[in-house]
Amino acid sequence: MAGRVTSVDVAARAGVSRSAVSRCFTPGASIAPETRRKVTEAAKALGYRPNAIARSLIAGRSRMIAVVVGYMQNQFYPDLLDRLARELQARGYHLLLFAASPEGDSDALFPQILAYQADGIILASATLSSALADECNAAGIPVVLINRTTDGTGVSSVTADNVNGARAVADFLLAGGHRRFAYVAGTAASSTNQDREAAFRGRLAEAGIGEVLREDGGYSQEGAAEAARRLLTRRDRPDAVFCANDHMAIAFMDAARHALGLRIPQDVSVVGYDDVGPARWPSYALTSVEQPVEAMVDIAASALLDRIEGRETAARIARVPGALVVRSSARRPAAGIMTIDGRDVWTP
Amino acid sequence: MAGRVTSVDVAARAGVSRSAVSRCFTPGASIAPETRRKVTEAAKALGYRPNAIARSLIAGRSRMIAVVVGYMQNQFYPDLLDRLARELQARGYHLLLFAASPEGDSDALFPQILAYQADGIILASATLSSALADECNAAGIPVVLINRTTDGTGVSSVTADNVNGARAVADFLLAGGHRRFAYVAGTAASSTNQDREAAFRGRLAEAGIGEVLREDGGYSQEGAAEAARRLLTRRDRPDAVFCANDHMAIAFMDAARHALGLRIPQDVSVVGYDDVGPARWPSYALTSVEQPVEAMVDIAASALLDRIEGRETAARIARVPGALVVRSSARRPAAGIMTIDGRDVWTP
Repeated sequence: MAGRVTSVDVAARAGVSRSAVSRCFTPGASIAPETRRKVTEAAKALGYRPNAIARSLIAGRSRMIAVVVGYMQNQFYPDLLDRLARELQARGYHLLLFAASPEGDSDALFPQILAYQADGIILASATLSSALADECNAAGIPVVLINRTTDGTGVSSVTADNVNGARAVADFLLAGGHRRFAYVAGTAASSTNQDREAAFRGRLAEAGIGEVLREDGGYSQEGAAEAARRLLTRRDRPDAVFCANDHMAIAFMDAARHALGLRIPQDVSVVGYDDVGPARWPSYALTSVEQPVEAMVDIAASALLDRIEGRETAARIARVPGALVVRSSARRPAAGIMTIDGRDVWTP
Repeated sequence: MAGRVTSVDVAARAGVSRSAVSRCFTPGASIAPETRRKVTEAAKALGYRPNAIARSLIAGRSRMIAVVVGYMQNQFYPDLLDRLARELQARGYHLLLFAASPEGDSDALFPQILAYQADGIILASATLSSALADECNAAGIPVVLINRTTDGTGVSSVTADNVNGARAVADFLLAGGHRRFAYVAGTAASSTNQDREAAFRGRLAEAGIGEVLREDGGYSQEGAAEAARRLLTRRDRPDAVFCANDHMAIAFMDAARHALGLRIPQDVSVVGYDDVGPARWPSYALTSVEQPVEAMVDIAASALLDRIEGRETAARIARVPGALVVRSSARRPAAGIMTIDGRDVWTP
């Protein structure tokens, strides 16, 4: 019964044109709220079932973007997913979610992404193998990586400007008079971790600091707490620690204070990366380099949709700068901090 | 070119049956990893594009579940979404994500959910109007609410056992010798908030406590911090505060300690609800009633898929019990706490 109701019936009952009915059920099409209300009412009354899927077969478009995420405990990813869903919805697409396995195994995902005929793919998992990106790209499906890069060609990527961000952390800690430095690493294979670590070490080396202690935190809070125990019980314990992300920095701070009885920043300074919500919680007041989620999502969505909709054929590589936001988890330099829009920012 | 490659070509190249090719690209179908590898390799080499969408038109199934979420800053929701995605993937469905507007406006979502022919819908937003659930149900699409209920019939819901959870909080605080009680409310219209508040007040009334202070936190951290300022600067400030969720309890604790200089639990005890990750962070060590995400997702997925796949026609109402996990944000009673699986749990 419901299947036999057509858009003509709905248009007649709603007192609008058939094209208004079509627009109401087309993702991203513009329609006046009052018209939408009329069409929706009529469609409900008649039991009308529109069919975006049939339309997608005709148009060769599913208007779905496959998004692969993992690591949802790190608040950066829920924030990113939320923004992505809203941005894609506003542009007439919807987000088909795939959860990456913790091991980063992509073999099982590729056939599924193909089967659903996603128009494009966004990979937003710092630990996912880049093989999936290359496979999708080879299959002709536009791909954007967020928060990591790949060596493969033809794949767009949007990251924070990790190199300048990590250099700023080094400068900030040097200006604060710190002497012994440590880095708590994320997963070694992730490009984000590599970029942050190399830039941090590189800038310190330029300043004559040859030795930087290192512990592996594996992007997990357990790993970061363990790294804190190892680093901070050394006789020559560091006085400045850069954690590859805030998620680890928070666990590092908790272990330093609550398991080891150290004061932050008097005994040890801690800096993170991402500037996620918990970094602003007064218990942490974490100094951190922001990853500007809103700008990153804007660029990622444009890079993807420009290719899907044929406005652009080339892949785009974007690095989005973010401020080093100064709070109280690290000793503050005497100069170089400015208050901008209510935030203290490192601007030497 | 790619469009003309068929599953027969892929089967021949891979040296497997045509049904193996079909299983490789069917969500939820079982296939040996080695067979999948062979099929995927052959499909890639030939540029084969399977088509779940065309199949869904034939089968009358999209194998997509629309999931509506908002409020991703509260870690309960990212955890829920992550589990849901994995559970649905394992059962051969994928998750089409819709972001609820902060105002809970569902008018724009309903036509889109219809248009994508979702097989079912999961609403997981404590602030969303229940109108959407009733609309979808009326349109014949099975609906499951998570973390809220509706008065409408025919709609399944899965919540924590909010009544017994909130009663346990009252008992626990009474046993700890507290005298002046307060409740920090979430959005007043949400069933979860109503259930928790009524049960908390009801149990206290049974114990002869007539007055319970109340501030509105609106499920936001800003609201909770403001509630702390109002409650804790009173001359007759409460010594026991129950916040409707952990997300607010954390901001309440931070405001009490860092803005008002109070000690927790010596000056004021704080209890939350959800037992999200940050409740376990040593800076908070929040006493909280758990919402058992894993069990809730299991039940929600079964309730939905049993209806979609025709094994069940009735809606299911499930309330999942969760433990009151005792940490150090509230004064501990002398008796009634047991250590179970490494957690201290209130078992009077």
